[in-house]
Amino acid sequence: MARERPAPTPLCSTTFDEFVEQVRAFHGFAAPGVMIGAFMVELAYRHLPKEGLFDAICETARCLPDAVQLLTPCSIGNGWLTIIDTGRYALCLYDKSTGKGVRVSLDPARLEAWPRIKAWFFSLAPKKEQDSALLLEEIRAAGSSLCTVRPVTVARRPAKTKGRRFRVCPSCGESYPESHGTRCLGCQGADPYGPAEDPSCEAHEKA
Amino acid sequence: MARERPAPTPLCSTTFDEFVEQVRAFHGFAAPGVMIGAFMVELAYRHLPKEGLFDAICETARCLPDAVQLLTPCSIGNGWLTIIDTGRYALCLYDKSTGKGVRVSLDPARLEAWPRIKAWFFSLAPKKEQDSALLLEEIRAAGSSLCTVRPVTVARRPAKTKGRRFRVCPSCGESYPESHGTRCLGCQGADPYGPAEDPSCEAHEKA
Repeated sequence: MARERPAPTPLCSTTFDEFVEQVRAFHGFAAPGVMIGAFMVELAYRHLPKEGLFDAICETARCLPDAVQLLTPCSIGNGWLTIIDTGRYALCLYDKSTGKGVRVSLDPARLEAWPRIKAWFFSLAPKKEQDSALLLEEIRAAGSSLCTVRPVTVARRPAKTKGRRFRVCPSCGESYPESHGTRCLGCQGADPYGPAEDPSCEAHEKA
Repeated sequence: MARERPAPTPLCSTTFDEFVEQVRAFHGFAAPGVMIGAFMVELAYRHLPKEGLFDAICETARCLPDAVQLLTPCSIGNGWLTIIDTGRYALCLYDKSTGKGVRVSLDPARLEAWPRIKAWFFSLAPKKEQDSALLLEEIRAAGSSLCTVRPVTVARRPAKTKGRRFRVCPSCGESYPESHGTRCLGCQGADPYGPAEDPSCEAHEKA
């Protein structure tokens, strides 16, 4: 299986306006958080060696992961991006072999200079009273000046799903990683669905 | 904030080969799991009403979320895609207002007819002995015939991060959702990093 990592795509190789369009297509709208996240990713790359295979951590699932997914080779589905929810607006790119990397975070104190960003971030005004075009302009002007960067070593590497062996669950007949036990986690209670629906329904078919 | 949901992009509007290229760009390589996931998304859409705002659940973080992110408006960062790990190769698209939708899963019994897919999925042969081009051809030929679809009602809706209020953590000075407590989860022990690095390091700067 060819598994070359593609080159990262830092924001500097695209314009802010182009990235707005990419975010609209992927995220559904030009979310301020993703735009700020783009500057955070770019700042991280500026402090990393030119060469290396960097995995990513987002400390929140709110917006930031989409900046990482659009601007780095890391995605949720390829396992190079992990979300470790500390609730903080921060990300980390780190060398997967050593754990060494950089963490970039939004510094609340720096929002004081940017009233529209502060009002949006801390929900200080109702959304309908916020002007999204002016907010985006403030984000463009602020750039990475909102952020702090520091070196980190990732001490607890996210568990990888790669290389798991799979077996068939004796309860539901579906496959699952054998490390989960004698039945799949769904049959152990993680299933988010209600009782089985009427099997005569149109959608209940073998496709 | 304009927050119109973009139209979904079912696979039928693109060719298999075009999607292979999209997956290479986003996921890093033409992962068999993402390609199978594309047929799963398409099958789900065939069983959903034409109109509606559908959120997504992936029951694994392995590959499948990237098919959802590329072919639906749902992403991790916009909160319309949630991963609920049951370990099973399954996804669900459901109406966010009613919880009603469809679940599509890979049926292990159906892999018997597709020896290359079966060998890949259950890791029955070393990766270097698997021919990725022939495997992709088998996936293209099998299409959604590998899958089962059934109606479901999502009983436990994923918690949304939207609308959270944020405050500044008195320990680290970063912002976090106030619902997390008097300090951020990072300062409560979720921080994945080792002890603070030498602050004289080049990366330790206010950007």
